Amino acid sequence: MTDPVRPPRAGAASRDRMIEAAIDLMRGSGLGGAGINEIVRASGAPKGSVYHFFPAGKLQIAAQALDSYAAGVHAFIDAALSSRDDPAAKVRALFDAFARRVEEGGFRRSCAVGTVCLDLDDETDPLRAVLAAALDDWATLIAFHLDLGDARRTRAMAQAVLAAIEGSYILCRVHRSSQPFRDAGTWLAAAIDAPRTR
Amino acid sequence: MTDPVRPPRAGAASRDRMIEAAIDLMRGSGLGGAGINEIVRASGAPKGSVYHFFPAGKLQIAAQALDSYAAGVHAFIDAALSSRDDPAAKVRALFDAFARRVEEGGFRRSCAVGTVCLDLDDETDPLRAVLAAALDDWATLIAFHLDLGDARRTRAMAQAVLAAIEGSYILCRVHRSSQPFRDAGTWLAAAIDAPRTR
Repeated sequence: MTDPVRPPRAGAASRDRMIEAAIDLMRGSGLGGAGINEIVRASGAPKGSVYHFFPAGKLQIAAQALDSYAAGVHAFIDAALSSRDDPAAKVRALFDAFARRVEEGGFRRSCAVGTVCLDLDDETDPLRAVLAAALDDWATLIAFHLDLGDARRTRAMAQAVLAAIEGSYILCRVHRSSQPFRDAGTWLAAAIDAPRTR
Repeated sequence: MTDPVRPPRAGAASRDRMIEAAIDLMRGSGLGGAGINEIVRASGAPKGSVYHFFPAGKLQIAAQALDSYAAGVHAFIDAALSSRDDPAAKVRALFDAFARRVEEGGFRRSCAVGTVCLDLDDETDPLRAVLAAALDDWATLIAFHLDLGDARRTRAMAQAVLAAIEGSYILCRVHRSSQPFRDAGTWLAAAIDAPRTR
């Protein structure tokens, strides 16, 4: 955010470009594709400026990129779920929005958080806290919108919705189709409408 | 498989150990963690033998490891779905089986196929055919077991089940809990039981 009194810090634009490049690279092929060299190349920033803005290197830029990405997805989920009133219609709208999102990425961009979760090893395990916070935040947001009456059941449905979103990215990526999002949305909406589950 | 007439080929055990090591490394942290050096170290095989068995290198060993892994998961899914008669009970049994599987891996092992899907880039894109074949095979197997009457609806449910399995691995990994598998199984079983979806 820009301070209204002082002029913007010099280099803030470079920093933002590096964060954007890191997000895009992680969405493309996970942590393995988002090394410092790749981020420098994709952002056009001078290599020295990476260590200026992110002195702790790759894990620091990854953590900040994941935080920034998570905030963007929060807004995306919130907008999709706010577009309808009925819980089942909200779920269908959410999966339709993700179907369009994966189409717009040419089936080459997944969820940065899900992708990095599966890439964790001993060295990158410190990122787990950032990933857990993002997934918790999204699940809480989905549960807030769905509100099926019982808090435990609502939370379980929110987790099932989130699991289906993350997994649909995998199927869409491989099949180069957005149909997996639509199939999962249809069935989870049906589950909400089932009388015995309310 | 061992030919009953001739003795086993020398080195077949090394080859199998390398395949097993590649599978385990891909389940742990994707393609980035399954380089030739890591496979050599984890399998204890001499480095030269990797190029003897897999002259095309990393992509060849990854493709054969994914094929072998996919066959094992096929048998695992088949056993879980065969343990019950009713479609909803089958779905619950399948997600419970995966919940135990992720617990047994100490929440550090995911699905090799899902993980590699999200790691694909231009260089590793040739693996996409192997991954698509594995996911198609599993979806066909799940659809065969569920058989909801209408082929299109059954296939859509099978894809939703598969997406939820792949995504649950992500949530389980980060939260170090098998609850995401149980939540997803409960809700998808409820969807099958919903009268309007049959």
